[in-house]
Amino acid sequence: MKFLHMLLAVLALIGQSATGGTVATGDLGLVIERASGSVLLVDQSERAVLHRIEGLGDLSHASLVYSPDQRFAFVFGRDGGLTKVDIVQRRIARRVVQAGNSIGGAISDDGTLVAVSNYEPGGVRVFDAETLELVADIPTGSKTVGLVDAPGRRFVFSLWDAGETWIADFTGNDARITRVEGMGANPYDALITGDGRHYIAGLFGEDGLSALDLWAETPQPIRVLAGYGRGETPLPVYKMPHLEGWALTGRDFVLPAVGRHEVLWVDAREFVETGRTNTHGQPVFAMARPDGRQVWVNFAHPLNDTIQVIDTLTRQVVHEFKPGPAALHMEFTPRGHEVWISVRDAGKVMIYDTRTFEKLGEIDAEDPSGIFFTARAHRIGL
Amino acid sequence: MKFLHMLLAVLALIGQSATGGTVATGDLGLVIERASGSVLLVDQSERAVLHRIEGLGDLSHASLVYSPDQRFAFVFGRDGGLTKVDIVQRRIARRVVQAGNSIGGAISDDGTLVAVSNYEPGGVRVFDAETLELVADIPTGSKTVGLVDAPGRRFVFSLWDAGETWIADFTGNDARITRVEGMGANPYDALITGDGRHYIAGLFGEDGLSALDLWAETPQPIRVLAGYGRGETPLPVYKMPHLEGWALTGRDFVLPAVGRHEVLWVDAREFVETGRTNTHGQPVFAMARPDGRQVWVNFAHPLNDTIQVIDTLTRQVVHEFKPGPAALHMEFTPRGHEVWISVRDAGKVMIYDTRTFEKLGEIDAEDPSGIFFTARAHRIGL
Repeated sequence: MKFLHMLLAVLALIGQSATGGTVATGDLGLVIERASGSVLLVDQSERAVLHRIEGLGDLSHASLVYSPDQRFAFVFGRDGGLTKVDIVQRRIARRVVQAGNSIGGAISDDGTLVAVSNYEPGGVRVFDAETLELVADIPTGSKTVGLVDAPGRRFVFSLWDAGETWIADFTGNDARITRVEGMGANPYDALITGDGRHYIAGLFGEDGLSALDLWAETPQPIRVLAGYGRGETPLPVYKMPHLEGWALTGRDFVLPAVGRHEVLWVDAREFVETGRTNTHGQPVFAMARPDGRQVWVNFAHPLNDTIQVIDTLTRQVVHEFKPGPAALHMEFTPRGHEVWISVRDAGKVMIYDTRTFEKLGEIDAEDPSGIFFTARAHRIGL
Repeated sequence: MKFLHMLLAVLALIGQSATGGTVATGDLGLVIERASGSVLLVDQSERAVLHRIEGLGDLSHASLVYSPDQRFAFVFGRDGGLTKVDIVQRRIARRVVQAGNSIGGAISDDGTLVAVSNYEPGGVRVFDAETLELVADIPTGSKTVGLVDAPGRRFVFSLWDAGETWIADFTGNDARITRVEGMGANPYDALITGDGRHYIAGLFGEDGLSALDLWAETPQPIRVLAGYGRGETPLPVYKMPHLEGWALTGRDFVLPAVGRHEVLWVDAREFVETGRTNTHGQPVFAMARPDGRQVWVNFAHPLNDTIQVIDTLTRQVVHEFKPGPAALHMEFTPRGHEVWISVRDAGKVMIYDTRTFEKLGEIDAEDPSGIFFTARAHRIGL
């Protein structure tokens, strides 16, 4: 009878957890721990760590995307590892090492395909999101960068060596590739606007950016911001800014300058510069709060202990503070009331109120870098 | 030992079913069943019903908002009922009847406060999202409409009788109310733009709309679109269009005309009309696909069996079809690849591919009206 009692007790417990076979994942997130090859599962509302998941390989320059149900994260490691993390079961679901050296990835709008761009060998590989089986291999003969998803089961990416952008359309049985030549010398990163219409590549080999209108029948490179880039810079470039940091603030984008201590304001319709704001150092990320009223900026080494907040109406710095050494990445809660900041060399993620700038909490993390909240699952290009 | 074996076997079985049966909340949604006072919990990816939750009172004109973790929905019933639905446990967590006749609600950006606007008695009541205990009662002496959340723990709403808009700021211990007079005669509905900056009220008593810039120190009514409204309409107005249907498509908003068989294109910066497109009937909702490339329009009785799709580059109707009688509401998947449409008098929710327009599936529902996907949890003003 003791066994029967035990059985019933266990059944009751498991019954509960099975009913709770739905797990709320809306306010969760993952923090990359770059040195230890692990990710921290965090809870935004509780400002707390839920679990550490280990064994993801080299995460020294890692990013991730989420499945539409916000259950799975696909983590792209520097070593070519593609790891599918189950944040409900809090463990690795699958892992493949798909290339020698990868640089980022994306997930199709329907959540069925995961694409990874690779340096070695150069190209894009596309995997079934369920099984991580290879669906398509797209060699490019070039280091491949700036991979994003676009609406309609498409991926867009650029070729460092060839100066081209390719659009891979997966609406049919096979990938249909559109090659756009003449993007410019050495595209090094790219972004897609939040509406999925414009793909914009930053150039390392010359000044200016190249934009594509993906709504056009035959997208052609449009050169914008001829003065933008490293060609004319009087300062050494400590770190090329991340283009994901191109922040939309109503009428304008805010773009981190290359090598200069400033951010640029760019008209979002015409892609022309409308002004500059001086900053503390060379900006790395310029991130708009989701409502666009503020832009938070972090900086390249050796000035990377500081964050500045710019008001988008006045274009003035309204707040400056030092969260600590190596403030690498910022992530806003989806509606913007709080921001999480990775402070690598303090071994902390700090959490702030974006209105009062008050510090609300912190969590311990091992060399934290990228922070990714699950709300990204519902955004184009993130 | 037999018991132990049995225990292990049962555990293994249950372990399996728990693994297979677990769902995350990122791709779920609720469908209002207006006649039966119930909601259907649905799974976007599976295109399936998970559960019916009953006992929500009069849902004949109901809407809902989600908690930031996407676990709870707060359903605002016509009868003044405020019901907190737990979509993890798949049951009603709490329910209060807070007034005699309510018209909608909102949740604060931090997820802690739920506000309801009421006709009888006129005003707004604010509840603790955890307990549904009353936190603040804001009588207005007027039917109260157009309640939305704004960034910074604020709610904004309008007074039908007084022609005013009030901003209630909950960042302190007590609500701080800012009254804006002179909004115009009989505001009947309102919206807040996706960035939380502009609050725009539709007027029943005169033509034109009133906009407020919530970033201004002292927001003042800005009259826009003087020709828009029912005053000059040559047609009987079968149903005032929903202003939530004001859709941003890159450069322009698309607005359902009042009483006319057309939608209006409005410059999103200047709030001036830039064109019109003829439609099948009087539009009720004009909803932009999340990428803004298409606008889907449904219509007032008796032409409400039809949907039209407008291409936003050409402003032409590119697709028209009849999902069935009383196509009341449309909801896009967050990245826009599919759309769900409530067809009330067919007792179905139909699901379509937004690129091919192919029908992908349908689910049975009792008099379905509003469809609300959990991704709304992460949007300002939804």
